Amino acid sequence: MKKGTRKQANLAETAPAGVLLFGAGLDMPETLPSARIAGVKGAGLLNLAAAGAPMPPGFILPTDQCPDARAGANGLTAELRNALKRGLEEIGQAARAGFGDKDKPLLVSLRSSPPASMPKSQRTVVNLGLTEALLPAYIARQGGGEAATWLGWDCYRRLLLSYAMHVLRLDPEPFDQIRTDALDAAKAEGEHELSAAALESLTRLLAAELEKAGALPRDPAEWLERAVAAGFAAWNLSEADEHRRHAMLEDLPGTALIVQAMVQGAASDGAHGGAGHLHSRLPATGDKQLHGSYLAQAQGVDLTAGVRMPDALDLLAKRLPEVHRQVIEWAGKLERLLRNAIELDFTIERGTLYLLGAMPASRTHRASLKIALDLVDEGICTQQEALLTVDPRVIDEYLHPVLDRTAAKEPLTKGLGASPGSAVGQAVFFAEHAVELAAQGIKTILIRHETSPEDIDGLKVAEGILTAHGGLTSHAAVVGRGMGKCVVVGANALQINYLINEMTVGEQTVKRLDWISLDGTTGEIFHGKLPQIQPQLEGGIARVLEWADAARVIGVQANADTPEDARRAVELGAEGIGLCRTEHMFFEMDRIPLFRKMILAGDEIGRAAALSELLPLQRRDFLEMFRVMQGRPVTIRLLDPPLNEFLPKGIRSQTRTAKAMRIPIEVIQQRTEALSESNPMMGHRGCRLAITYPEIYNMQVRAIVEAACIVKKEGTQVHPEIMVPLISTERELIVLRKSIEELMQRVMAELGETISIQIGTMVETPRAAICSRSIARHADFYSFGTNDLTQMGYGFSRDDVGVFLPTYLEREILEGDPFMALDQEGIGGLIKLAVEQGRRSNPNLKIGICGEHGGDPESVVFFHRVGLDYVSCSPFRIPVARLAAGQAALLWHRGELLGTDLPSSRPPQGAGHA
Amino acid sequence: MKKGTRKQANLAETAPAGVLLFGAGLDMPETLPSARIAGVKGAGLLNLAAAGAPMPPGFILPTDQCPDARAGANGLTAELRNALKRGLEEIGQAARAGFGDKDKPLLVSLRSSPPASMPKSQRTVVNLGLTEALLPAYIARQGGGEAATWLGWDCYRRLLLSYAMHVLRLDPEPFDQIRTDALDAAKAEGEHELSAAALESLTRLLAAELEKAGALPRDPAEWLERAVAAGFAAWNLSEADEHRRHAMLEDLPGTALIVQAMVQGAASDGAHGGAGHLHSRLPATGDKQLHGSYLAQAQGVDLTAGVRMPDALDLLAKRLPEVHRQVIEWAGKLERLLRNAIELDFTIERGTLYLLGAMPASRTHRASLKIALDLVDEGICTQQEALLTVDPRVIDEYLHPVLDRTAAKEPLTKGLGASPGSAVGQAVFFAEHAVELAAQGIKTILIRHETSPEDIDGLKVAEGILTAHGGLTSHAAVVGRGMGKCVVVGANALQINYLINEMTVGEQTVKRLDWISLDGTTGEIFHGKLPQIQPQLEGGIARVLEWADAARVIGVQANADTPEDARRAVELGAEGIGLCRTEHMFFEMDRIPLFRKMILAGDEIGRAAALSELLPLQRRDFLEMFRVMQGRPVTIRLLDPPLNEFLPKGIRSQTRTAKAMRIPIEVIQQRTEALSESNPMMGHRGCRLAITYPEIYNMQVRAIVEAACIVKKEGTQVHPEIMVPLISTERELIVLRKSIEELMQRVMAELGETISIQIGTMVETPRAAICSRSIARHADFYSFGTNDLTQMGYGFSRDDVGVFLPTYLEREILEGDPFMALDQEGIGGLIKLAVEQGRRSNPNLKIGICGEHGGDPESVVFFHRVGLDYVSCSPFRIPVARLAAGQAALLWHRGELLGTDLPSSRPPQGAGHA
Repeated sequence: MKKGTRKQANLAETAPAGVLLFGAGLDMPETLPSARIAGVKGAGLLNLAAAGAPMPPGFILPTDQCPDARAGANGLTAELRNALKRGLEEIGQAARAGFGDKDKPLLVSLRSSPPASMPKSQRTVVNLGLTEALLPAYIARQGGGEAATWLGWDCYRRLLLSYAMHVLRLDPEPFDQIRTDALDAAKAEGEHELSAAALESLTRLLAAELEKAGALPRDPAEWLERAVAAGFAAWNLSEADEHRRHAMLEDLPGTALIVQAMVQGAASDGAHGGAGHLHSRLPATGDKQLHGSYLAQAQGVDLTAGVRMPDALDLLAKRLPEVHRQVIEWAGKLERLLRNAIELDFTIERGTLYLLGAMPASRTHRASLKIALDLVDEGICTQQEALLTVDPRVIDEYLHPVLDRTAAKEPLTKGLGASPGSAVGQAVFFAEHAVELAAQGIKTILIRHETSPEDIDGLKVAEGILTAHGGLTSHAAVVGRGMGKCVVVGANALQINYLINEMTVGEQTVKRLDWISLDGTTGEIFHGKLPQIQPQLEGGIARVLEWADAARVIGVQANADTPEDARRAVELGAEGIGLCRTEHMFFEMDRIPLFRKMILAGDEIGRAAALSELLPLQRRDFLEMFRVMQGRPVTIRLLDPPLNEFLPKGIRSQTRTAKAMRIPIEVIQQRTEALSESNPMMGHRGCRLAITYPEIYNMQVRAIVEAACIVKKEGTQVHPEIMVPLISTERELIVLRKSIEELMQRVMAELGETISIQIGTMVETPRAAICSRSIARHADFYSFGTNDLTQMGYGFSRDDVGVFLPTYLEREILEGDPFMALDQEGIGGLIKLAVEQGRRSNPNLKIGICGEHGGDPESVVFFHRVGLDYVSCSPFRIPVARLAAGQAALLWHRGELLGTDLPSSRPPQGAGHA
Repeated sequence: MKKGTRKQANLAETAPAGVLLFGAGLDMPETLPSARIAGVKGAGLLNLAAAGAPMPPGFILPTDQCPDARAGANGLTAELRNALKRGLEEIGQAARAGFGDKDKPLLVSLRSSPPASMPKSQRTVVNLGLTEALLPAYIARQGGGEAATWLGWDCYRRLLLSYAMHVLRLDPEPFDQIRTDALDAAKAEGEHELSAAALESLTRLLAAELEKAGALPRDPAEWLERAVAAGFAAWNLSEADEHRRHAMLEDLPGTALIVQAMVQGAASDGAHGGAGHLHSRLPATGDKQLHGSYLAQAQGVDLTAGVRMPDALDLLAKRLPEVHRQVIEWAGKLERLLRNAIELDFTIERGTLYLLGAMPASRTHRASLKIALDLVDEGICTQQEALLTVDPRVIDEYLHPVLDRTAAKEPLTKGLGASPGSAVGQAVFFAEHAVELAAQGIKTILIRHETSPEDIDGLKVAEGILTAHGGLTSHAAVVGRGMGKCVVVGANALQINYLINEMTVGEQTVKRLDWISLDGTTGEIFHGKLPQIQPQLEGGIARVLEWADAARVIGVQANADTPEDARRAVELGAEGIGLCRTEHMFFEMDRIPLFRKMILAGDEIGRAAALSELLPLQRRDFLEMFRVMQGRPVTIRLLDPPLNEFLPKGIRSQTRTAKAMRIPIEVIQQRTEALSESNPMMGHRGCRLAITYPEIYNMQVRAIVEAACIVKKEGTQVHPEIMVPLISTERELIVLRKSIEELMQRVMAELGETISIQIGTMVETPRAAICSRSIARHADFYSFGTNDLTQMGYGFSRDDVGVFLPTYLEREILEGDPFMALDQEGIGGLIKLAVEQGRRSNPNLKIGICGEHGGDPESVVFFHRVGLDYVSCSPFRIPVARLAAGQAALLWHRGELLGTDLPSSRPPQGAGHA
């Protein structure tokens, strides 16, 4: 029989049935079991042990024991109790102690090891094996005297507390009270300042409190059995169950449990014991440099408890150079073993090194990029493995200028960071001013209560946008994000006075042309001109994006409304345009009068006349777009917003428009009134406009087809797709598709060209998702409009949600803003259903998504998982989407895409004692 | 071997395989096959034939032949062609003619007979068996000469046309053109005015047109085979397929086809031939009196063609008294056979009576009641069978006064009938005027552009309500319906001038105190005082409702906000209150100032002070409610609408309020502005208010529990249920349920009582339905808020939908207003999913619905089908809901609830030649 790292032929004959042993001198399983069997932590420990790492001996009760544990004494079957017993015997031999032994009592910890990362699953019970009766023997074995007595009672205290919390699940409040009283009485800051006698008396009070919930067992085996039963039972607690349901982890077998011998870094004199923590690379920058901390005569918990200040690793090098050398060596070995930068917990007991756990190292998103590139260059891992460790948030930093905070004073106030990067410019309060100043080359920040489509020219020229109202999906946020501008919205503390062109925040006043600096990531607003650090589109980012493109299976397209946007999108890697919003074209200075003329026309003839003037302009839009995109798909959404949005609001604007159009102002006011709606979001818009005013879509379709034919004649490939918005019934699509197809045929016949143009629909009403099986019969493609789907699914108006959303987030009723990261259970559920039902009736259906969520990494992973063909997002989100899509494909391929966690937060983990 | 009505032992040995014969002299199947096998029409004909009715011989190709028919020659298998041939031989023998026989050609019709009622399935091909070659023989057999020649060509013409339309599915336009040209040339009104020669030439032109689509077959068997193939293939046409999908009929096997010998009522001289139609009872009133029409020397189609005016049945009695006696006798026999009032088609060929079809008679909803009661009293059918024939719409008529139209002039204009019945009163334009006049005993009609909660006292006292704007779910419509008032809304032609208290419609002017009469069913508005026919709550209605109560399995509860409403609801049969809207209580004159004070308070303390003044008033509401309901369930919905709705709108109202509250008007205006929302339907309302302002629900819960405890102490049973509105996430319900439960316990402890109070939620956001499995864990009951679910599912704001809904209905994009009859595919799909998922995680979940749809008969049938426990509707809809629920239970029990049709429109049907 081989020992330690050596493998054995037949596990079943020799190792105790039902447990997986690890550690020096124990029979390890021949094939390392997966996390599904040993749990994530357990699999990590086995991996470490198999590599020969020096570890306290232990064993794992695998996940398949979990459901069985519900029956039997103390909740355990006789078989399981027997396995426990035999496991303890094995590690007792290795540790030269015995569980419950009157002379050499073995102490163990018990931890849960679920097969996927789960919150609140950190339930560690320590020092099992100690009882009051065994304390004297344990103290004697630690050398006796004041120090050993203190240590003994401290071990027992930690056992009692962890048992009370995690096994009996008692209310912590009375225990805290007892502790506070005892420390107060001794005028001590913590237990380490108590005498051994005082610690003993505190511990006895805690034991008495614990006894109120029932007598403590005398037999240490009974403590352990109860702890094991509680550890398994925790798997079935409703909160754990709920988490798994939400994370779609319902088919997991159960949790594993880890039993491991305790080591005491505080046990001996300072020269020969202690605890430490080590990063193999600098967590802040990713530089290849060891980084760690060490505390002599301490346990791991003391490193982070904040009572004693840890020393640098140098101390260890001085005191125990050989151990220091071993630690360094293991850091390198483990990087190769885990194929990643690692962090490591270790304890030194009486001069001997024990590794308590190693896991992929935490790191900043900036460091994640450097580490990934270095690991590949050093041959430590593959490109694919490295790709999974890059945090998509790093892209934002590399693509936008950031404020240089070195000289920064306090921010003026803070709003919601709606579009990343930074902006520095001079304050203006009207779009017109921004335009005027831009003509003189002056950089401005446009400040408004809220922006509206009329401000579009100001938004274009401003460096940054700041609004006092509105949320992350307000007009300013959406339009600004589309333009890649820095945007801060909802800065409620701002008091804007348009009359005198200034704003105040508390005592401070910002006047027109004052310098302002915005941080679009944090939402901070500074009064003054902060320096900016310009983006460095390093080769590193480009390399990582190449890895992602090689891995990903879903397409990445852009939401782009203008040829400039389209051009930028292609540069950033877009494979097409997934959403071209035609209405944004009508807001242009030269179009809006014509579009208003159309709306104000009393009848179809008047509308048709105005539309015929718009036709050449709209055709030109598409012409340029098609030329830029060179045969890549261009998905054009026909007119969506309610007509009222295009009319001027406010008497000033209405007067100006009336004058320009040479009509009485009453005409504008009456039409505005007639078109006003109680809930415009759910009113007369989208395809509903086309049913009542068919001439609008007819003009648009004609412009698309004519432009496509012209470009084709020029010899450039062209691939337009026509998208009908806001479908909620099958009949709408049948009727509109028929009319679009007929017109397309007519126009192509006129121009003597044939171009294949797909016709599809936005799926953005819940009913469209539910009735997907019917609707898909008439669609060549779907594009999920997740913004509207989220609005209607929740019944959350995104313009109004700002009033209660902060409370919802604060009280954790929502985990996040559902307009930023897709709600996977509810809105995701609708999407999943629509995809399944739609493909059932139309297997060739192409499916994408074009809401804000298309650029959110977590949501991209979801879209990959439900089988979408592509995502479409703002040009500036394209690199993030590419990265996330690549990661999703790799995780999926490896069968590890279990939870809803971000990939970078969930590679396999080992773990140490707390 | 027995013949005709006699049964035989072994069908398979003797009858042609695969066909079902019927008619005198033929082997009938021993057991009559169901509609699933023979189709609805086919089963009806077999039933008639089995009863010995004189019928042209025929046979049925059963549904199981349908899918097979897709393969083989002409789309037919050899087996099916053989079966056809043998079937034709059998009916040829019975009819003493031969299919394709050169001397005595047999003519047959082919009709489809689907196993459930399907629209557009009436595809009859007539006179199959005739070819141009066989025409001379056929004419000779009809006696020769001009009349027989005309008849022969007319038969051939009808064959050609029905073959062109239903077999070849050609465009009718060219055929219509040929006909029009021929009639114009002959200056004839119809074919009957053409000479035989002219008819022949017209027919030849039609044949030539038909030949363009391919040569006509020479062999009549080929005509028939092609027609059979087309009949089966029609089952798989996409439109039929779509209908079945929508009607959830996808598991049906296919269609059956009926082949039957033609009889010619026009064949002989007037004394011995003709066609007639008979109702066994008067269709308008249901009186037991035969009612029919007869045309000598005519086919059935001529009866309804409108070219010749049919005679009364008396003519038949005079000319053919024996045949007349037979017809009368068969009408009686068939009522007993079909266990229903019937209508009957017959043809007389050469003095012999043939019944072509009999079916349950069409009738007015008023007649349906009389007939149902009479049939039971006469012992013709059971109560349950009779119940299914009552049209639920009859209830409306019997419960409301109707206008006596005998002297009515033209209506002034027409709006939307929003609440049935009628109202006659004097015009007023302000709620205050209605209140003043009511105090003097004067009956008023309140006329407004739209009503708002401020008008509530005027709405209460007015006889009827008329608005120029708003749809069927506007404030006036919903509130008025709840009060059982006659309401007409959306009368767009009204021009109201509040300043001078009058309205105009075109040229006509209605001044204050002019008499107005409203019809709440048709939406008509009359200037003047029309007499009213008062409702007669006859014993008959009560009897039918008793039958329904005995049959139904789902509960019927009421939406009632006041003790008066509750009392009325109980009188009308409500078993509880499914929805008590607490906000309506705050609109009362004595509450609204306090509620406004609460809204205008700047902080929680101010709100709490105002709420503590509201507490006793709200408690009193519940006290009275519980006393009236005597232990029946009272489901109380906590505050739902956005707070802005409670603030006064318009400067006049704001000034008045500011004065009364002694606060500056700016306070009201600023708060109104701050609370205004872009899309209030999806804004800060429902449980969202409770998350941000917990004190409101706390007051309401306290009032409920205190009232319940007091009533219990009085010795009256009490059964309150607390309903949380607008839940969209599981966490909302977890948080609010916890807070409600804790408060309930505290209040009960204070009062020393224990009452079991269930806590449930409205399911009215699509996300709540999708996430039902999570949410149901925390709910004792669900109540579907189908109004909001419809709004959010479609993205249709019910306040704004009026702009495009008429176009949607006109263009048949929607089959009906989804706010009136539930959309079963989409919104119903969400409900179905929520029920299934909710019961999966909480099998004890009680589920109801409390939207407007709870009183719509068709929707009630759906709610029964998806397994709801109860429906809740306006008190005045309770009887309709009871009736519909009873019918649903019976249909479901009988396994006949297949389509979405109203039950009364779909009992089994026989049918005749067209």
